[in-house]
Amino acid sequence: MLISFEGIDGSGKSTQIEFLRKRLKEAGHTVRVFREPGGSEISERIRSILLDANQKINPVTELLLFSAARSQLVAEKVIPLLEEGTVVILDRFYDSTTAYQGYGRESVPIDYINEINTIASHQREPNLTFYMRLSVEQAEKRTAQKEKDRMERSGKDFYQKVVEGFDKLAESEKRFITLDAEKPKEIIQDQIWDHVSALL
Amino acid sequence: MLISFEGIDGSGKSTQIEFLRKRLKEAGHTVRVFREPGGSEISERIRSILLDANQKINPVTELLLFSAARSQLVAEKVIPLLEEGTVVILDRFYDSTTAYQGYGRESVPIDYINEINTIASHQREPNLTFYMRLSVEQAEKRTAQKEKDRMERSGKDFYQKVVEGFDKLAESEKRFITLDAEKPKEIIQDQIWDHVSALL
Repeated sequence: MLISFEGIDGSGKSTQIEFLRKRLKEAGHTVRVFREPGGSEISERIRSILLDANQKINPVTELLLFSAARSQLVAEKVIPLLEEGTVVILDRFYDSTTAYQGYGRESVPIDYINEINTIASHQREPNLTFYMRLSVEQAEKRTAQKEKDRMERSGKDFYQKVVEGFDKLAESEKRFITLDAEKPKEIIQDQIWDHVSALL
Repeated sequence: MLISFEGIDGSGKSTQIEFLRKRLKEAGHTVRVFREPGGSEISERIRSILLDANQKINPVTELLLFSAARSQLVAEKVIPLLEEGTVVILDRFYDSTTAYQGYGRESVPIDYINEINTIASHQREPNLTFYMRLSVEQAEKRTAQKEKDRMERSGKDFYQKVVEGFDKLAESEKRFITLDAEKPKEIIQDQIWDHVSALL
């Protein structure tokens, strides 16, 4: 089982992933969590290029680098683990590319993004995608104190387009479960567990 | 004017590029040469991942990394230089991706390779592509003493498929000029100059 978490920074993905990881473990499952971009040696090297605040990266380059990091993570880690029966949780997956590099940066048309996503994910689709929905205003409040990397310095208009992108995906993709990230985390935890346990 | 040189290692691309650069300069042109992957700070960082002999890189990751390096080089250097009227010579361009990652590695079908090439080159096509054709056997003799990077350690079967890939491109792409790399370099120089000067 492959589960992805999506949403802008500050939406509480990490907290919910940690909860789900523990709960799955308690239920007897083997679980692995990976954070994109990263999760393998090569992908971490790509991550360091992508998040370097001193770099000016062309939007198409950014798209291809996120995709390259994903391809390596999926081929080297995710696929072998899924084949062993491990539950894999991804902190971001290709829907982030659609939202950030597609709707946010408008690097290339969405049809091309979809093709590159298919290639980079080696045709693996999540069974469930939890979309932690948060307004840009709320996200800004939550992340105000944090030191921002290159992606996080992209500005409010960019993040508004990213949220609209996630919203469009949520409308069209059946595997998407939209969660209101402003609700108390305990409520969201229960909603997530309902969906995961129904599928197990 | 954008000119690319293609062919396997040992085919004499560097020698011919250096000759052409000098001759264009003597004729009063501004010329810049870039070697792929590389040519910009980000692209060089990607190059160091790609050629690291200690890494096991998935073929799809390799495709996306070469494409990312290309995208950055084209956006940051090639397009601005072409717009200034500089003649740009590329030591490898997207035809190498078709030959190496497409025909050689068989990472993804050639149609997808073509699409990624279009995206990564920001729709820029060379005016001329010089293909220095050499057999794998001859290339092996010429590069026998050289310390090999990760790509160069890919084996003879791989290189055979790469040469077949270049041959197919030479048949289908009008901009391809196939040169017999076993001929004396002075003869090849004159052939190259005939084609370039006819276009200037």
